[in-house]
Amino acid sequence: MRTPLSSTRFLQRSSRLLSTKPPAMHPLTAASLNPAILNVEYAVRGELAIKAEEYRNQLKNPDHGLPFDRVISSNIGNPQQKGLDQAPITFVRQIAALMEYPALATLAPTAFPGDVLARASELQSEIGSIGAYSHSQGVPYIRHNVAKFIAERDGFTGPYAEYSDPNAIFLTAGASAGVSLLLSMLIASPNDGILIPIPQYPLYTATIAQFEGKPIPYYLSSSLSAGWSTSVSDVRDALAKAKSEGVNPKALVVINPGNPTGSVLDRGTMEDLVKICEEHSLVLLADEVYQDNLHARVSFTSFKKVAHALQSPAPLISFHSTSKGVLGECGRRGGYFECTNISPEVLALIYKMVSVGLCPPLQGQIAVDTLVRPPKKGEPSYSVWKEETGAIHKALAERTSTMTTRLGSLPGVKCYPSPGALYLFPEITLSQKAVEKAKEKGKAPDAMYALELLDETGICVVPGSGFGQKEGVWHYRLTCLCPGVEEYVGKLEKFHKGWVERYGA
Amino acid sequence: MRTPLSSTRFLQRSSRLLSTKPPAMHPLTAASLNPAILNVEYAVRGELAIKAEEYRNQLKNPDHGLPFDRVISSNIGNPQQKGLDQAPITFVRQIAALMEYPALATLAPTAFPGDVLARASELQSEIGSIGAYSHSQGVPYIRHNVAKFIAERDGFTGPYAEYSDPNAIFLTAGASAGVSLLLSMLIASPNDGILIPIPQYPLYTATIAQFEGKPIPYYLSSSLSAGWSTSVSDVRDALAKAKSEGVNPKALVVINPGNPTGSVLDRGTMEDLVKICEEHSLVLLADEVYQDNLHARVSFTSFKKVAHALQSPAPLISFHSTSKGVLGECGRRGGYFECTNISPEVLALIYKMVSVGLCPPLQGQIAVDTLVRPPKKGEPSYSVWKEETGAIHKALAERTSTMTTRLGSLPGVKCYPSPGALYLFPEITLSQKAVEKAKEKGKAPDAMYALELLDETGICVVPGSGFGQKEGVWHYRLTCLCPGVEEYVGKLEKFHKGWVERYGA
Repeated sequence: MRTPLSSTRFLQRSSRLLSTKPPAMHPLTAASLNPAILNVEYAVRGELAIKAEEYRNQLKNPDHGLPFDRVISSNIGNPQQKGLDQAPITFVRQIAALMEYPALATLAPTAFPGDVLARASELQSEIGSIGAYSHSQGVPYIRHNVAKFIAERDGFTGPYAEYSDPNAIFLTAGASAGVSLLLSMLIASPNDGILIPIPQYPLYTATIAQFEGKPIPYYLSSSLSAGWSTSVSDVRDALAKAKSEGVNPKALVVINPGNPTGSVLDRGTMEDLVKICEEHSLVLLADEVYQDNLHARVSFTSFKKVAHALQSPAPLISFHSTSKGVLGECGRRGGYFECTNISPEVLALIYKMVSVGLCPPLQGQIAVDTLVRPPKKGEPSYSVWKEETGAIHKALAERTSTMTTRLGSLPGVKCYPSPGALYLFPEITLSQKAVEKAKEKGKAPDAMYALELLDETGICVVPGSGFGQKEGVWHYRLTCLCPGVEEYVGKLEKFHKGWVERYGA
Repeated sequence: MRTPLSSTRFLQRSSRLLSTKPPAMHPLTAASLNPAILNVEYAVRGELAIKAEEYRNQLKNPDHGLPFDRVISSNIGNPQQKGLDQAPITFVRQIAALMEYPALATLAPTAFPGDVLARASELQSEIGSIGAYSHSQGVPYIRHNVAKFIAERDGFTGPYAEYSDPNAIFLTAGASAGVSLLLSMLIASPNDGILIPIPQYPLYTATIAQFEGKPIPYYLSSSLSAGWSTSVSDVRDALAKAKSEGVNPKALVVINPGNPTGSVLDRGTMEDLVKICEEHSLVLLADEVYQDNLHARVSFTSFKKVAHALQSPAPLISFHSTSKGVLGECGRRGGYFECTNISPEVLALIYKMVSVGLCPPLQGQIAVDTLVRPPKKGEPSYSVWKEETGAIHKALAERTSTMTTRLGSLPGVKCYPSPGALYLFPEITLSQKAVEKAKEKGKAPDAMYALELLDETGICVVPGSGFGQKEGVWHYRLTCLCPGVEEYVGKLEKFHKGWVERYGA
């Protein structure tokens, strides 16, 4: 019989084994640990997510007494989670299943289209068993396919390896693992700084804290007409301020399309950012995991393409993932980063570090291969693939549009356009009364908003304070992944109106 | 057309993109990186492994001019790699395939035994899609199954959660990821030390270097009758010496069964080691990934069981993996660690840190579930499972025995008994002439032995210097995974005899 796992009870039962003989001295306390760990914060899976998990368990009891009948986890970009409706792409899963159990090709040949059988057989001959460690940098053949994808995506017409070098590509366990590795290498002293956008995806502040560097925030601007944007002069100001304070800037993080903002950079801004990296000897860390999540009339331009056109010598590392886009394969932990203008000496050090971890998960690597080599027109799998991916893009675009309009119509709410990624990041005006109430409770005002939203509706969002925001301005982030958008937005509206009644606009 | 990937050419082609406009200044050099990174060494995938990869590519050319026709990677415990003969366990892969593509249960029901279909359906209802992020600590249901497995393995007869708490278990991307995380948390200052056996698996020295702690070596002893053993007084001496030098010991690493030694600890020694941890406020890090690889008349006793019997309050973290044992599923990156006598406060910090990385790979988690819940007698999959796992155990035992005897009969070679794990760690006497020749070449003498072995036979092993050894004593580590043991050992014998002719015994 399975004990239900409540998140509050998450830790209650440990170290009671020996309750008959309590330890005289318990050497392992938080105070004895690496102090950097204590400064790490990751709001996406923080207090609210833990409380949501508690409610989810409570709902299993018919007499739960809660004012909602399900918890909706809008706090995390996890498209295939229970309760959301994004099914996996059939092509991806058919190949994955054949890689797991190659005998299926003869046991159940009719269960798979011909192109899937051929693809799986090709991958098997390149890789062998997916139960073996691969090359630490990732299967060479898959890295070649990634390089080809990058060259084609960016419109490069020569031999792909002249544009993107498979030996400078590292497959990873999701983009996060790559970001963490690179930051651990770049931060050489507590005085080293990393420029990050604010608001940012909290992986960056968490990892900078872990490796004891200094975040150098540059604030993004928002306007109802243009959405969120990056001001090059604000980046320059942030740099100058950091230098004047004795901080040594090492890298510039850019998230494009933006998380949590959903913004998409224009080419001029991208060029200026590349030039700043050149001028100030910064490594450009381009988080481009949402490059395939575009739901307005915008297209994606990679930093690789921009840097190449400028013939820039700026070191560039760009990240991609199988967790977002139309695949949404978060659970298999797949991704890659590509290094441009990185010296062989430094690449060899990166290789050494990844070799200690042996290799990225093979099913993540296989998913990367599928990401960069989807079925082509005329192939048996193409029509299903086209239909499935089209439906995902369409649903996301429609939800984003509906949610933006409706949330933006609420009193005291500004919902900026979000042409990319999976999120909205509405700004909420919070009254003096609400701010004081939050202070009383020892919460950030937007965290109180998010907590009351969860308590009342079962909808879990992340308060803006988890991402960073300008002082005195409040937001929350929610995903645009929830099905039944009418009912969902209806709940958000009803809650917000009640909030305004309680605390004023 | 795929460019063959030579490992020496591994990095040659990068950063040449912009050769027309060489950067005036290349800010990212090894000297600008975290200096701790430079001190990391990981011999298992070091110089020899890279050279082996080169030879493997060279062999694709019919006129390769090499004195062998295949490379045998005996440097790494990777049972399913190409060229070795360990096939995956069918039960594991059938479940994995159904988790990838649940439609197979209706598309090809006859391809799967009934218990596999039932198990997959149960896991699907617990987990949902394996394309979703799970709980950061791992799927709760799988953690419950792990706890049950631990209790049953250790002969605990009460309710399993009283012996092993699912909330104190963390599923990981292989054991390495867990070891790395824990060491990053335990090392709080450059003065903090970690006791490690010498010889050791180089993950430990690599990770301690990365997080800037101090390794505190305790040397294992070897004898032809008793094999490798751990002397409790040597551990005490190492502790005293470290303390006298101002080092602050935080944890004791024990690898049991041993890597690279293959030794299995006796219960008395284990009890003493637990007591040392109590006395000196050390965390016991028990690397037990080879617990199922026992091929002599020995049985495995876990540190959990020993600590429990002693009612010890010593904090204990034990690691297990899906990469070794009979599964040998290295590529999916699965494993777990169990925390005992660790405070809720510290568990919460571990949880926070794993949440930044989102979750371990789901196929690794599924493999952990299969590891802890193999088919039972009477179930449809049992007989195939029994046959497959029996054949793996038998082959390993036979190879280990043959190799130990034959290598141990060579002049100047001592091959200690290896009742556990996957390796032999023969000691080789190297003549003064050989030592001088190695010095000339700037190599460790055992590295020169291993390099000449590779050049002559295509067999890749790891020199003892990669694991640590007493001064002036030389070894190498090789796996017992290679099929065709007669031919394989024949090559090792022939090489060794030639070596003795060249350099003397």
